[in-house]
Amino acid sequence: MEQNLSHTISLLSRTPAALNALLRDLPDSWTHQDEGENTWTAFDIVGHLIHGERTDWMPRAKIILQSGQTQPFPPFDRLAQIRESQGKSLPQLLDQFASLRAENLQELRALNLRQEDLAQRGRHPTLGVVTLSQLLATWAAHDLTHLHQISRVMAHQYRDAVGPWGAYLGVLQCAGHGSP
Amino acid sequence: MEQNLSHTISLLSRTPAALNALLRDLPDSWTHQDEGENTWTAFDIVGHLIHGERTDWMPRAKIILQSGQTQPFPPFDRLAQIRESQGKSLPQLLDQFASLRAENLQELRALNLRQEDLAQRGRHPTLGVVTLSQLLATWAAHDLTHLHQISRVMAHQYRDAVGPWGAYLGVLQCAGHGSP
Repeated sequence: MEQNLSHTISLLSRTPAALNALLRDLPDSWTHQDEGENTWTAFDIVGHLIHGERTDWMPRAKIILQSGQTQPFPPFDRLAQIRESQGKSLPQLLDQFASLRAENLQELRALNLRQEDLAQRGRHPTLGVVTLSQLLATWAAHDLTHLHQISRVMAHQYRDAVGPWGAYLGVLQCAGHGSP
Repeated sequence: MEQNLSHTISLLSRTPAALNALLRDLPDSWTHQDEGENTWTAFDIVGHLIHGERTDWMPRAKIILQSGQTQPFPPFDRLAQIRESQGKSLPQLLDQFASLRAENLQELRALNLRQEDLAQRGRHPTLGVVTLSQLLATWAAHDLTHLHQISRVMAHQYRDAVGPWGAYLGVLQCAGHGSP
């Protein structure tokens, strides 16, 4: 299906509560363990989502609306959360994500975007020409890719514990496909 | 890590609220669309989780504790939800899942399982000998495999809408690995 702004907002508005319900006060052995060297924990992923709220989605939407293709987006720092999450607890990050997401959605709604706005184009530093509609669809799909990743990272912690059932659990065959 | 009963229960107790926060009142275009022929929607998956609560996890745990390896588990019907979810709404299924899960966890806690209980063995109809510990770990990992699947099924709905960003979204490369 095509991006539908109201459906995108429906999904975006639910992610913080879903992650909160899943992760808050879970034992650290679920949330602070990764899949091996150079991989992320659930804690790291929530930090990455926070960084996206701050520097990626709405800032890029505004660049498209204000400058079109003339100003490429600044590159996104995929490792910023390692620095920014230091010293914080997972409940603090979940609160921060919920609050930034709510602010961003309020700002998005206030733009009152019309179909012709959604068709406006911007320039991604490596992908080239993209539309505002594609950016907003990606915001929602990016939530889902990280929910997919969190479920995989947590399942990995029980890789041995499930014994022979591992063969039946698709999540344990998933290696992340080179991306989250 | 090994299965830790208290960590397993921590996770199992959170899944219904996480799915509720993610899915309740989302537009049907997210929750009632699949990935193509012979694949499941988020709605189907919640129905499958309900069927597991009814016929799989605790019933199998009791077979292990009562009969050990002498009585193989009855096979699990992976398509039962198609029949059982008919005529129900997603909010009804979410409520039913939450209520069955709460009852099952109450029953699990009441068993007061000790380490020697967790080491008890049963017989899976195709996998052969399994332990109670492996069964309980699989219950938790099975939640995660279906959260992984739900995030993938929903992301699939925006496969075209994200345009060139699809290359960066791991969830869109995931084909389910022959299992959920």
